[in-house]
Parts: sequence; C-alpha cells; structure tokens
Amino acid sequence: MTPEKVYGINPVREALRGDRKAFELFVQESATDQRIGKLAKLAEERGLAVRRRTREDLTRVSGSPHHQGVVLTVAPFIYADFDELLDSLTKTGAPLFLLALDGIQDPQNLGALIRSAACAGVQGIIIPKDRACGITAVAEKASAGAVETVPIAQVTNLARALEQLKEAGCWVYGLVAGNDTTIYNADFSGNLVLVVGSEGDGIRPLVRKQCDHQVSIPLYGGVSSLNASVAGAIAMFEAAKQRHE
Amino acid sequence: MTPEKVYGINPVREALRGDRKAFELFVQESATDQRIGKLAKLAEERGLAVRRRTREDLTRVSGSPHHQGVVLTVAPFIYADFDELLDSLTKTGAPLFLLALDGIQDPQNLGALIRSAACAGVQGIIIPKDRACGITAVAEKASAGAVETVPIAQVTNLARALEQLKEAGCWVYGLVAGNDTTIYNADFSGNLVLVVGSEGDGIRPLVRKQCDHQVSIPLYGGVSSLNASVAGAIAMFEAAKQRHE
Repeated sequence: MTPEKVYGINPVREALRGDRKAFELFVQESATDQRIGKLAKLAEERGLAVRRRTREDLTRVSGSPHHQGVVLTVAPFIYADFDELLDSLTKTGAPLFLLALDGIQDPQNLGALIRSAACAGVQGIIIPKDRACGITAVAEKASAGAVETVPIAQVTNLARALEQLKEAGCWVYGLVAGNDTTIYNADFSGNLVLVVGSEGDGIRPLVRKQCDHQVSIPLYGGVSSLNASVAGAIAMFEAAKQRHE
Repeated sequence: MTPEKVYGINPVREALRGDRKAFELFVQESATDQRIGKLAKLAEERGLAVRRRTREDLTRVSGSPHHQGVVLTVAPFIYADFDELLDSLTKTGAPLFLLALDGIQDPQNLGALIRSAACAGVQGIIIPKDRACGITAVAEKASAGAVETVPIAQVTNLARALEQLKEAGCWVYGLVAGNDTTIYNADFSGNLVLVVGSEGDGIRPLVRKQCDHQVSIPLYGGVSSLNASVAGAIAMFEAAKQRHE
C-alpha cells in the first residue's frame, strides 16, 4: 500500500479531522502562517510525526508547488461500498439526495463537484471505475476536504447502479444541454439521483437511458457553455432549494 | 502599448491557441523538452518569430525563473471604459444586469466567473485595478473565450463605481456568507449589480458599504464552503432565472 499525499491547508485540516489513517505531517520549516502551526498541533494530538522540511522538499514530496507549506501522508482514499451506502441511506428514512458523475476526467472538476455537493446536502456520490478520474490528491485539494464528509462509491457499471437506485425508489434526473425541460420546472423533491456528465461528451448513452428525466439549465447569453462543475453546482443548489421549501 | 508576457508550457500553449494577438516566442536554446519544440512549431504555424535565448535571458524577459523554457509576448487585453459601458448599456433601455468582482486573486476563478456570467446573460463585468487579478492569458483560457463576448471594465475605485451605478438606478446586491436573506428571497429583477468578493476575504468593507442588500446562498451540508466562482455562478443563475420569469 503506497500512502497518498494530501496537501494544502484546507485538505490537510479535513484529512486530519477525517477517518483516513494518517502517517506523517510535513510542514515547511520557514512557514509563518499560523494555520500551519495549528495543523502541526492537531497532528501531534493525533499522535502523528511532524517533520519540518524546506519548501522545495514539500514540493517534491507532494508533486505540486501548491502545497501551502503542509503535506500529509495518508492511507489511500477509502471508497464507500455502493450497496452498503444505499442500504444505510435508505434505513435513515429521509428522502435520498445522491449525485452520480458520469466520466468526469478533470480532477479539479471532480473535486469542485464534491465540494459543491457537500454544501448542497448531497448524501452520497457515485462515480464509475473506468474512464473517469478517481479521488486523487488533486481532486481532494479541489474538494477543500469535502471528500472526507460525503461518502463516495466507485462502481463498475454506473448504468446498473442507477437501475438499482430506481428499484430502491429513486427518480433519476440527467443534466443535459439544450433540453426544453429546465431544472426550474423539474420536481427535485423526494428520492433524487442527479446525473452530471463529463466535460466534453456529457452523459453516455447507456447511462442516459437510465434517466427518468433529462433537464437543462437555460442559458441566456451568446455562444458560451457552462463548465461541468459549475453546471452541476447550479443544478444541485436548485434541487437543494426545492427540497428545503 | 507594452506587450504582456505569458510564460510556462501550458499558459504559452493556451495563449498560442487563443484569440489574442501574439508577437514573439522566446525559447530556451539548451532546452531538451519536446513540448517546447511543439510550441515553437505552433508559433511558426501562426507566423510568429521564434527566438532562441539562454535560460537567464528568459528569466529576465519573463520576470520569473518559472518560465519552463518558453516566454510568449502578447497584446494586452483591451478593457471596456466604465463610463462608456454604463452609457451604452443604459441607452438600450433594457434592465441592466452587471457583475462586480471585488478582489478575485485567482485567474482560474476569474475566468470561470466570466464564463458563467456570459451564460447567465450578464451585460458587463467590473473589476478593480488593484489587488485583483486582471485578464491574463490564464484567466482568458479559463473563461473559454467569454472574455471576448462580455465587456469587462477595470476601475480604480470599485466603491465609487458602485455609487455611480446606484445613481444610474441600479440596485447593488452583495453576495456574502451566512446572511439570513438568501438569494432566493432577494428581488433580482430590474437594474441589478451583483457583487462577488474574493476567495479568502469576501467583499471589502468600503465596497460592502455600497451594497443595498447583502444576500447569501443557504448551505445545507457540514462544514464546507463554496468556491467563489461556484457561489458567483449560483447567484448569477438565480438572478437570470428571476429576470426571465
């Protein structure tokens, strides 16, 4: 098992507070940022070794210059088991609110979507194993630590997983471009699975087939299109709003 | 007109593919990185002069040691004049929909906000000259070309510009965290200026003072906060929705 590296103030703080096993915290020896001192204290309270290194060492360890003076080595990301996740969520009796991401390739977009999902009250995220970005250190950084707060399941067959969710009483809404049915006239109350497709290709045909409804965000200006993570956030927050009305 | 310098493999590649006028590509004479050769070829295809220089020369030209062996000179972005923009927009007679960005530091976030603004039907964007990112090649790339479709004015004093907009009949709404008044119970119809603050500090006090209303996006999950560009997009699309109802 190769440890993964989490870097940046927020991701390291969330990782230290989260459930993942952590090994060592590397902090920049010349750092004056008080937040780094707090993280070192938090790490020591968790019984971790805290090592002081140069800025360049941290860049080498993390593989990125954007470490903000802190790098934490942790056990690889632990995905939730899809069946167990579905089981535990349905047992709560509360209406389900899930996000399925079909083939997001860019770890920045993946992390951004997870961050927005956590803020919108999404209870679980489902991503496919193949042809999609997994939870890497970059995704984790972009999520600002939200990967520790929302369970994420990786499934072999996303279309099959959606079928299972429909059998469990969910409505599956696919976010597509240019449909007349908008997110504003969709009914996002009840047991909801929102499907967001990849940056370039959108939702794949077999996954799209499993969508009960296809909804769009109306665009009002020129030729531009929305970034996948922004579109996903707008749809998730419209759903969150409807569900809290 | 002083040309701007774009440096680093990815930014230079993006700038070469973009719409801004480019002048010269400087490449490090001793460089063995194949990507640099590809950039030189791309520059030649665009009819640009390719000049070979020492590593130290490139550091001097770019003002940074992080040039990765390539520096491109490009024409500066052309900002709209604030008074002319306000004048031409009010003349159309249509209700105004403007975005003011207070101190966005990250060119990725700036570009993402401009991209979303273009999709939401925003007619003009106002950014401050100081302590904020301008339209760099990175911002331009992140905007997916939207910097060419929405006029962007750079002002010396953003608070003063908002005062002027209020005198012209606009309502100024500041997007803040944790306010009881939400974007959903705000009235975004009519002449609207939406103010989005910086990633870390939000809207500065003097700018905040010019806001007629302060509104928030309700968050439903855990400890996470929204990314500035995502929060801005959610607010802009709520405004766009209300304005088209």
